[in-house]
Amino acid sequence: MTFQLLPQIGSPADLRDLKPAQLTQLASEIREALCNVVSTRPAHFASNLGVVELAIALHRVFDFSRDRLIWDTGHQIYPHKLLTGRFDEFNTIRTRGGLMGYPNPQESPYDLFVTGHAGSSVSTVLGLKAADDLISPDERKSVAVIGDGALPSGIVFEAMNNAAGLDKDLLVILNDNKMGICPRVGGLASYLDKARVAPFYDGLKKDISWLLNKVPVVGESVENALGQFKDAVKGFVHGGMLFEEMGFRYIGPIDGHDLQSLEQYLELVKDVRGPVLLHVFTEKGHGFQPACEDPVSFHTPAPFQRRDDGEIVKVSGGSSTAYTSVVSDTLHRIMQRDERVAVMTAAMCAGNKLDGIRADFPDRFFDTGICESHAVAFAGGMAKAGMRPVVDIYSTFLQRSFDQIFQEVALQNLPVTFCMDRAGLCGPDGPTHHGVFDLSYMRIFPNMVVMAPGDAADVEPMLEFALSHSGPVSLRYPKARADRIEREVAPVELGKSEIIEWGEDGVFLACGTLLPECLEAARRLRTEGLQVGVINARFVKPIDTETLRRAVEETGFVITVEEGTLRGGFGSAVLEAASEAGLRTDQIRCLGLPDRFIEHGERGELLTELGLDCEGFMKTARAMADRGELVGDHD
Amino acid sequence: MTFQLLPQIGSPADLRDLKPAQLTQLASEIREALCNVVSTRPAHFASNLGVVELAIALHRVFDFSRDRLIWDTGHQIYPHKLLTGRFDEFNTIRTRGGLMGYPNPQESPYDLFVTGHAGSSVSTVLGLKAADDLISPDERKSVAVIGDGALPSGIVFEAMNNAAGLDKDLLVILNDNKMGICPRVGGLASYLDKARVAPFYDGLKKDISWLLNKVPVVGESVENALGQFKDAVKGFVHGGMLFEEMGFRYIGPIDGHDLQSLEQYLELVKDVRGPVLLHVFTEKGHGFQPACEDPVSFHTPAPFQRRDDGEIVKVSGGSSTAYTSVVSDTLHRIMQRDERVAVMTAAMCAGNKLDGIRADFPDRFFDTGICESHAVAFAGGMAKAGMRPVVDIYSTFLQRSFDQIFQEVALQNLPVTFCMDRAGLCGPDGPTHHGVFDLSYMRIFPNMVVMAPGDAADVEPMLEFALSHSGPVSLRYPKARADRIEREVAPVELGKSEIIEWGEDGVFLACGTLLPECLEAARRLRTEGLQVGVINARFVKPIDTETLRRAVEETGFVITVEEGTLRGGFGSAVLEAASEAGLRTDQIRCLGLPDRFIEHGERGELLTELGLDCEGFMKTARAMADRGELVGDHD
Repeated sequence: MTFQLLPQIGSPADLRDLKPAQLTQLASEIREALCNVVSTRPAHFASNLGVVELAIALHRVFDFSRDRLIWDTGHQIYPHKLLTGRFDEFNTIRTRGGLMGYPNPQESPYDLFVTGHAGSSVSTVLGLKAADDLISPDERKSVAVIGDGALPSGIVFEAMNNAAGLDKDLLVILNDNKMGICPRVGGLASYLDKARVAPFYDGLKKDISWLLNKVPVVGESVENALGQFKDAVKGFVHGGMLFEEMGFRYIGPIDGHDLQSLEQYLELVKDVRGPVLLHVFTEKGHGFQPACEDPVSFHTPAPFQRRDDGEIVKVSGGSSTAYTSVVSDTLHRIMQRDERVAVMTAAMCAGNKLDGIRADFPDRFFDTGICESHAVAFAGGMAKAGMRPVVDIYSTFLQRSFDQIFQEVALQNLPVTFCMDRAGLCGPDGPTHHGVFDLSYMRIFPNMVVMAPGDAADVEPMLEFALSHSGPVSLRYPKARADRIEREVAPVELGKSEIIEWGEDGVFLACGTLLPECLEAARRLRTEGLQVGVINARFVKPIDTETLRRAVEETGFVITVEEGTLRGGFGSAVLEAASEAGLRTDQIRCLGLPDRFIEHGERGELLTELGLDCEGFMKTARAMADRGELVGDHD
Repeated sequence: MTFQLLPQIGSPADLRDLKPAQLTQLASEIREALCNVVSTRPAHFASNLGVVELAIALHRVFDFSRDRLIWDTGHQIYPHKLLTGRFDEFNTIRTRGGLMGYPNPQESPYDLFVTGHAGSSVSTVLGLKAADDLISPDERKSVAVIGDGALPSGIVFEAMNNAAGLDKDLLVILNDNKMGICPRVGGLASYLDKARVAPFYDGLKKDISWLLNKVPVVGESVENALGQFKDAVKGFVHGGMLFEEMGFRYIGPIDGHDLQSLEQYLELVKDVRGPVLLHVFTEKGHGFQPACEDPVSFHTPAPFQRRDDGEIVKVSGGSSTAYTSVVSDTLHRIMQRDERVAVMTAAMCAGNKLDGIRADFPDRFFDTGICESHAVAFAGGMAKAGMRPVVDIYSTFLQRSFDQIFQEVALQNLPVTFCMDRAGLCGPDGPTHHGVFDLSYMRIFPNMVVMAPGDAADVEPMLEFALSHSGPVSLRYPKARADRIEREVAPVELGKSEIIEWGEDGVFLACGTLLPECLEAARRLRTEGLQVGVINARFVKPIDTETLRRAVEETGFVITVEEGTLRGGFGSAVLEAASEAGLRTDQIRCLGLPDRFIEHGERGELLTELGLDCEGFMKTARAMADRGELVGDHD
């Protein structure tokens, strides 16, 4: 297919005059552009296929050069990018220096917030609306598009509660594709399923327009029996009682692939006063049959090509074992022999590779949906009752449980194990997904043990340690191939690092999976005549102060290495320990991530840029070895 | 009144055989015990008066030596403590070494979790239930009691969604007193108000027992029109549609002060399968008229006595100005001249002393209810649209916004100002309320500026600075009297500390409001012949590296002082800065809070115990001055 219309869409204004047939053509071209991207690299796919018509309709009915639009979670932003002047750069998406795979205000004024974590769209749109009403009343509309996967996230209810209380004009579009990344779960899922089988799902119905015309929209009190009866009847008629009870006007459900109907409804709700929820059914993967049939795999598929006969052929193979798999395989083995162990995920069964555990231990597997706060408090409850829960959540998303880690786990000193997946730089997803703060935030809580395996061989003994420890334990590992360092693996003991090799000129004190790079740097430095040892730190908390003392006192320098922010991270913990032990720190140098948000790009590419690879470690070691001249000069 | 029954209640088992008249007497004695406590010290009061009958009924119907009970938020735990064998120690509550003002497993097996932050009870009870079902099925019931103030907290919905999905037998009691600490707000508030005017609120109604008998309780599908109609009718009949839609069976509302009715209902729902919400109306302050009339003031009243004529006389006066007032007064002044400034609180209008701002700037004041996550994302939206929002939330509760501070504020680099009240040790409330982690968690985010006023005079220029800065800024201050250091106050400049006095032997580098104690220590050390300077750090991020360099190179030692955890806190930031600047750190010593949870007690008392007072600072300074002998020995 050649692109005829897309290249002409310089901004959403260019959509206004298109004829229905052209709009259909445009939708096809958008889907073609999406297919082109995912044939070259992993990218969000099925969710984008599902919102093509919705994106077109929104940009035709509203004017988002003035009105406000937030796409919750943000991975379904591709059609929006194509419609807001970014077709020419579209093939750069998710590459270093190219377009982000999420909304990005630095790319376009049509992107208001970088989103990536779920659920905050209703809050931010309400904030925009509240401010707009103060600054320039009635000039701007506000729209949030949120998926049913993000809907159960607690902040959505907090925002809806507040929106209803403030009675702001606000349109929340529930993009209901019956899926998160994984099939949705919980009471709300059943609730939405009921709406799906409601008997009137066929376009702009008379009864609904009647209701819209007849039900008083502003001001009138409904605190009387008649009002209650009307509410009840409305709930019966169109299934939106839950949202009506929250104080929203509920409209729908409607077909999210019928462009004409979408536009009619959007025109209809555009000027309704007060908060409105428009329930739109879409199909994840719509327009591309393989994605419809397997939306989980096609959420972010491996690159593939379509053969002429329509068959899908995977382009990239190379199924080297990732840390995620090492962890889930190990947990699976442990669960076979230890009935106390239960595993919970927050809608990331696929990403965390927990399908095997879900299949084999359905009683001890819990998917809370995108509800990380609840998941951690829930784990606290399980631990209190005698189980050994393992919370398996991406590092960046576990940030949403910060207060529950504090109150429900650390303060109670309960034995919950945190597996912080995707710790470190998370590659093409960029700053919302990089897991670079976990070491800093986990170690501030009393009772919390914080570990990072140095290689694949550390994983099993660390999990064994965690599950036999009497209090909370966390371990973190990256989205990366799980290398294995040939050695006799030392037993994991609380607060003990593992000396891989000693060096009298200095040591690398490596926290986590940059350890093999440190070993390679040490090997190459030896050929230059520099004897640099390598220590597998293993514990961020408690710090192995004795080994640190030996390293400081018996070698020339200590270089700490971590794939996390230097602000409060592992290096900071080492400096604290050194200070508390009365050790000098001017021979300690901390390598890690600088104090800025790191953009998207391949993990290896980013690490190299940041000096966190073999070359970077060697360079720092050389500088430290020569530091008599360099002190005060190395920034 | 003399206590006749309470002293005989050694455990809830002793409640079982009491006659109705004795139970009434018992309720009176509990209220008397509550009045006795609040006549001697500030303590949670009105909420406890409201749950006297509920606590008695729960302990008579259930056996919580086996069954599970969580009191959400926990400040209404007093009657429960009195009924579970703690009458004798009750007068020690909220004093150092005495009973906690919140549930505490170390006091009693009847307290399962230390609670204090709102909303997590449904999650923890669900976790307990899920574990109990695996370990010893059907042996234990699970009950959460949650107030209507905590209900809108997002985690409650996350938990209800999960509970409905898992279909666990779970009783959630909604203790609806129409109040949080402040009057409740938002869509849910209106919703519950509607339930309040429902026409059948008079005991065990036939229609409800009929529904309980007739509606199939387990297994049966309701995905048909008949089921929907029944749901709608039920919603009309008893107003609980919101909870029914979430997947809970809703029962109520019932009178929470009618002990007999309470027990009947609890017996009724005890064995119902699946998740149940029992809606109980209570009156905050019940049984004590002044508290009913002013439940906000009587949430945690200042000590008072009742005269014989029933009049209330406040016992302690001393209205010295607290930091909270300095901040709110300053904000009030700024709002008069700067229309961009808006203030948001999360249900703490009273605690944050924002009544004046609410009254005078109703359009620019936002109370989100106990929804800190939403409040911060909402502020992000407002800032994006051009306002200058100020988020005024207690340090410990702001932990609930950790991920929104990350994504919606720091990542977008939006000018949101965080006023972190109650930072440092929060006194009698104890570890759930101490705000000791904020410096550590705030400073890890790129773009975030972190400040701490050293005295009252710093507040206004810091707020002015924050509201003119182009990115996010946070400042923290304790629940304490706002002292003012006589000096010419230096202008607040980004990353600049303020040298109050220089000393060649060493300096105190004080972060925050322990500054006056440092000055006093320095004054007294001078009489001993030790010249110790005092620097008002002001900024935790960015650190004033130049002044630090001068202090390290030109004086004998630097003692950092902070009222926060040493793990990742201000001292840690100083060590990082020193390391990055190539400065030696063995002459830097960090004072702050140790790596354990600090119990309750008076703030001054706790600070003294921890060496964070004038004496402690002097002792450390003497040791550092003499550190040639002491290095490696000071731990």
